[in-house]
Amino acid sequence: MSKLKAGILGGTGYTGIELLRILGRHPSVELSCITSRSETGRPVADLFPSLRGVVSLDFTDPGDGALESCDVVFCATPNGIAMQHARSLLAAGTRLIDLSADFRLRDVAEWEQWYGMAHACPDLVPEAVYGLPEMFRESIRGARLVANPGCYPTSVLLGFLPLVEARLVKTDRLIADAKSGVSGAGRSAKTDHAFCEAGDSFKAYGVAGHRHHPEIRQGLGDLAGHAVGLVFTPHLVPMIRGIHATLYAQLDGAGSADLQALQALQALYENRYAGEPFVDVMPQDSHPDTRSVRGSNICRIAVHRPRDGNTVVILAVEDNLVKGAAGQAVQNMNLMFGLDETDGLDRVSLVP
Amino acid sequence: MSKLKAGILGGTGYTGIELLRILGRHPSVELSCITSRSETGRPVADLFPSLRGVVSLDFTDPGDGALESCDVVFCATPNGIAMQHARSLLAAGTRLIDLSADFRLRDVAEWEQWYGMAHACPDLVPEAVYGLPEMFRESIRGARLVANPGCYPTSVLLGFLPLVEARLVKTDRLIADAKSGVSGAGRSAKTDHAFCEAGDSFKAYGVAGHRHHPEIRQGLGDLAGHAVGLVFTPHLVPMIRGIHATLYAQLDGAGSADLQALQALQALYENRYAGEPFVDVMPQDSHPDTRSVRGSNICRIAVHRPRDGNTVVILAVEDNLVKGAAGQAVQNMNLMFGLDETDGLDRVSLVP
Amino acid sequence: MSKLKAGILGGTGYTGIELLRILGRHPSVELSCITSRSETGRPVADLFPSLRGVVSLDFTDPGDGALESCDVVFCATPNGIAMQHARSLLAAGTRLIDLSADFRLRDVAEWEQWYGMAHACPDLVPEAVYGLPEMFRESIRGARLVANPGCYPTSVLLGFLPLVEARLVKTDRLIADAKSGVSGAGRSAKTDHAFCEAGDSFKAYGVAGHRHHPEIRQGLGDLAGHAVGLVFTPHLVPMIRGIHATLYAQLDGAGSADLQALQALQALYENRYAGEPFVDVMPQDSHPDTRSVRGSNICRIAVHRPRDGNTVVILAVEDNLVKGAAGQAVQNMNLMFGLDETDGLDRVSLVP
Amino acid sequence: MSKLKAGILGGTGYTGIELLRILGRHPSVELSCITSRSETGRPVADLFPSLRGVVSLDFTDPGDGALESCDVVFCATPNGIAMQHARSLLAAGTRLIDLSADFRLRDVAEWEQWYGMAHACPDLVPEAVYGLPEMFRESIRGARLVANPGCYPTSVLLGFLPLVEARLVKTDRLIADAKSGVSGAGRSAKTDHAFCEAGDSFKAYGVAGHRHHPEIRQGLGDLAGHAVGLVFTPHLVPMIRGIHATLYAQLDGAGSADLQALQALQALYENRYAGEPFVDVMPQDSHPDTRSVRGSNICRIAVHRPRDGNTVVILAVEDNLVKGAAGQAVQNMNLMFGLDETDGLDRVSLVP
Repeated sequence: MSKLKAGILGGTGYTGIELLRILGRHPSVELSCITSRSETGRPVADLFPSLRGVVSLDFTDPGDGALESCDVVFCATPNGIAMQHARSLLAAGTRLIDLSADFRLRDVAEWEQWYGMAHACPDLVPEAVYGLPEMFRESIRGARLVANPGCYPTSVLLGFLPLVEARLVKTDRLIADAKSGVSGAGRSAKTDHAFCEAGDSFKAYGVAGHRHHPEIRQGLGDLAGHAVGLVFTPHLVPMIRGIHATLYAQLDGAGSADLQALQALQALYENRYAGEPFVDVMPQDSHPDTRSVRGSNICRIAVHRPRDGNTVVILAVEDNLVKGAAGQAVQNMNLMFGLDETDGLDRVSLVP
Repeated sequence: MSKLKAGILGGTGYTGIELLRILGRHPSVELSCITSRSETGRPVADLFPSLRGVVSLDFTDPGDGALESCDVVFCATPNGIAMQHARSLLAAGTRLIDLSADFRLRDVAEWEQWYGMAHACPDLVPEAVYGLPEMFRESIRGARLVANPGCYPTSVLLGFLPLVEARLVKTDRLIADAKSGVSGAGRSAKTDHAFCEAGDSFKAYGVAGHRHHPEIRQGLGDLAGHAVGLVFTPHLVPMIRGIHATLYAQLDGAGSADLQALQALQALYENRYAGEPFVDVMPQDSHPDTRSVRGSNICRIAVHRPRDGNTVVILAVEDNLVKGAAGQAVQNMNLMFGLDETDGLDRVSLVP
Repeated sequence: MSKLKAGILGGTGYTGIELLRILGRHPSVELSCITSRSETGRPVADLFPSLRGVVSLDFTDPGDGALESCDVVFCATPNGIAMQHARSLLAAGTRLIDLSADFRLRDVAEWEQWYGMAHACPDLVPEAVYGLPEMFRESIRGARLVANPGCYPTSVLLGFLPLVEARLVKTDRLIADAKSGVSGAGRSAKTDHAFCEAGDSFKAYGVAGHRHHPEIRQGLGDLAGHAVGLVFTPHLVPMIRGIHATLYAQLDGAGSADLQALQALQALYENRYAGEPFVDVMPQDSHPDTRSVRGSNICRIAVHRPRDGNTVVILAVEDNLVKGAAGQAVQNMNLMFGLDETDGLDRVSLVP
Repeated sequence: MSKLKAGILGGTGYTGIELLRILGRHPSVELSCITSRSETGRPVADLFPSLRGVVSLDFTDPGDGALESCDVVFCATPNGIAMQHARSLLAAGTRLIDLSADFRLRDVAEWEQWYGMAHACPDLVPEAVYGLPEMFRESIRGARLVANPGCYPTSVLLGFLPLVEARLVKTDRLIADAKSGVSGAGRSAKTDHAFCEAGDSFKAYGVAGHRHHPEIRQGLGDLAGHAVGLVFTPHLVPMIRGIHATLYAQLDGAGSADLQALQALQALYENRYAGEPFVDVMPQDSHPDTRSVRGSNICRIAVHRPRDGNTVVILAVEDNLVKGAAGQAVQNMNLMFGLDETDGLDRVSLVP
């Protein structure tokens, strides 16, 4: 079988270099082009020396037609760019996996409010499939346009999924206390993410409102079958990669009495994720650390049931650039093109 | 006025060196002795080169009688040691500030269960005053024996205090999602706290139970006037100093309707802490970072009121070794001896 | 005695905030104004929350005349700004301490080549005193205009000083392998100094040429009495503060035979720095770590004499923002105004 | 072809887990056993959760005979253990790759002095091949017993190799200023390598003498054809993985005049390493950072020629756990068993 021709729109950020790291060793993919307006003509390995000997492409202009000849294009651009290219790329027969937020919210008005711009192609939004395989695997297989989930939403949704799907918790007061490494903020220079500002310190941010809040609520609503209430508190951790979501929910509903025992909760999670190649439910009383998934596509989950009251605590970790971005995008590509879902995604976490 | 003679029992850990840093520049204190069984005879500045030129003492044996001649002794020992010295030191007329956990829990049986040993002097426990000046200032002034609070409890109690004291939130489902720098685990070598284990990673720990849980519950119970329900989730942050407590409570009760507006919440906190020298309520929509209190005795707090539901989110940061340990101990000493409460505690945070 | 009125020109960078940290607690200084064109009107403590309760000033416009009424002005501006203000401030009777590079090189042509601009007041350059007290204490006392040394030059010059001054090493092949924390690069946002770029990694930079090279050579030449040959290799360390200079020199000359023994070398350093309040020569076989001077004005030095050949290895550490910048500037101010040289500079290093 | 049966003697340290990471995905290797006296019976993935789903073995006792049935055994033990197993394993027909120092020094007396113990099998020392493929590739192919180089020696030798081999520098005054991440010190708990001790700080260590000094001198002597003089200064960097060697040599000898130009130096290095799969000579004026080789088997080198004098500066980076340990061991295994030298070693560096 001939290899898939893959292109990357906007390859100078962290999701771009991560796609290159993964696709550069994918057995069924030929990296065909990678674009950057600002770096056109520059060898990729000149900007990213870690790719010397791995990627021999130069950055090209996105308007030169190369993307249109690809089987699949990954959009690793800032928000608002992918939607400007989507129509023509789809028309050319290319399938799209958008790692930005352009097609994640089904409610276009809500999207426009949070992202502060008019949507360039609202008519394409309904067609976009939300690329969380553990929720939408079958739809992803047939999709032309996949909205790859945000990094926080991936961990929070996978963490809450079994409980909410089974209607076992109160959905009006879910709490997601989430912590992210600094790479989640992207590669562009900002004072807040300078080494001397983010290093050796810890803080919350965006408590009053964060763009991933509506995205998580949409996903939780899909699972619950109705709107949910969510408090989402993101924090910045002085580490490079990794998200740790600490999730709180109160047991409720018909079957919840059976879950008072931790064993039953544990079984619920193990059963739900039994066939999932990239979700690992740890044994009871575990505390996953983010480094255990550093560089890998795994989301690792532990289930806890503290003494006081009827609250369940779920711990979920992922590498925000892999399962939270580029790795999940490749997982989606594998599904869309009938490849083995794990192709190119067998890298072992880098520990220590 | 002659200077206070201060001694330190067990000075080789992080609270020990932090006491030396602060007391070494305190205008009314003469550092009289510092003990260590393992390092007896060794110059303090040999073990801690940062104290060269600041502290000229050698470590001495705790049994040589020097502690008994001090006006005040700080116990910076592992749990279980201070209680063995307390009776004789008090009998000698020395006043004690115990930075370990030996006298923090009024319920001796609960203490023995959590700390896994019999208490050496349960009769002294009722006399001990819990050294959180914002709650117990007047009692501290007259105390012979102060139980200096734990690092997590200080931030969690100061964060919840105005809400719980005013009976404005449901106290059966309080949540404290707390994050600590690695120095909270002390200076002794453990694999888990090695640079290559704790660095560039993030995890929760002790979710099933942590010794600070009963201590926080005791304090919250004092504020509420009845037992409370608390979920406490500690996490380890790859930074050296600092605790960030993210606190969740649901508004409830008579006056809580007035707090639906963020302005009223903000005013509640500002009023409660108006006269406190070491609690800083930030303006609305702030996100305190732990570095803003690095090396200082400040606890900095911000109040948030997210959209969904009726949950209040409080952010509280402190330096676990200062307001969470040695700084608060010196604050207590200042109160006990009629000094200005801020003496020796005017150091500005080290940023960046 | 009335307090000195001190102003800061350009206070939004790391040397600015560090001056505020030190001057905010200086017993003989009244902080009079701090300027910033971009932040005019904003409270200083709003930009730097760590200064809440310490500094109550707002940033003001540098052209509003307030600087001219100060007894002393610290220039904490990027290179090229101080020289534009120097003449008028001096004319107003203010004394200047320039923390930028504008007055450090006596050779104006060389300055213009390295800094890529014409010098605005070459006639003032000869008057400027290089503010390294250990070399030029007496001249500093009488100076109107002090060129505060660069961070690298301070550590490299203090490390080499006793050997070069005593004519005991070959001066045509000195090597300074220097390592700096990221704060040395300033507070402005640059991709290279982002947390995810500089974190968990190490590299050399500027090996082909660095602006501190001519500055160090000038100082070494002053010590040697003739031009010297120096290889200077700066490196970037994933830490916030601190410089570690590892210096290599080959023994040579009349007295050098006596130095073959480490004891003699050790004595040379101890004697030379015996009266210096801010240079600490450690005992033999020591390895100073940068954290031992974190936040303090100390330069800590260790002397080594490896087996092979006749090379001496000197280790020198400093906090680049204190002894390498703001602390040394305050030390110079103390000298210029007849204060105790250590006033305001007694802060103990923050360890851990 | 059937897979190689590989065993690991002593698998609980960082080189052990790194071998598992690499061998767990090696196309021609079946991981057969991994031993640990202290963890016998415990699943490997229980100790190292990052290996869940990758390694299904339990730790076994080294005396149970399983190692003897392997085609190749990697010794990832502390110094002094491999030499106790070597004779019996070789007698059983197993080939050995020792990642510890037991067989690195040909001079047994010198080894015994530095490592403080008697050598258990001095008769095997002459047979051991020093496993640096770029120097000894052909001998490695035929070896039964390979002494895998230390982490520092690998980077220093690869950095100096072209210059020394071609007799172009003075060999009596070579200087290696080397910097290592903390993982180089291993996984056992030591206070010095605790997060709060090694973090946010930088220091030299072992300046008076380090075990890698004789090993590097031996290798440089092999290259030079005679004994050399070397000053070796190791430093500890607050990062997890990575070594950066900054090397200084003075040009000398017949051909050195031609090297005054940087271009000639650059060509020397490019030519020498043209066919090497794991040495990457960067373009002129480059500064390799350690992260560019994080997790990969590459040693990346840049050549510099500063202005003053006739000193050459070489920068060489490697991942101390890969090219400096486990990766190089697998490279040696590939050579010993006639596999493609790069098998299992195609992982792309993890950046950021």
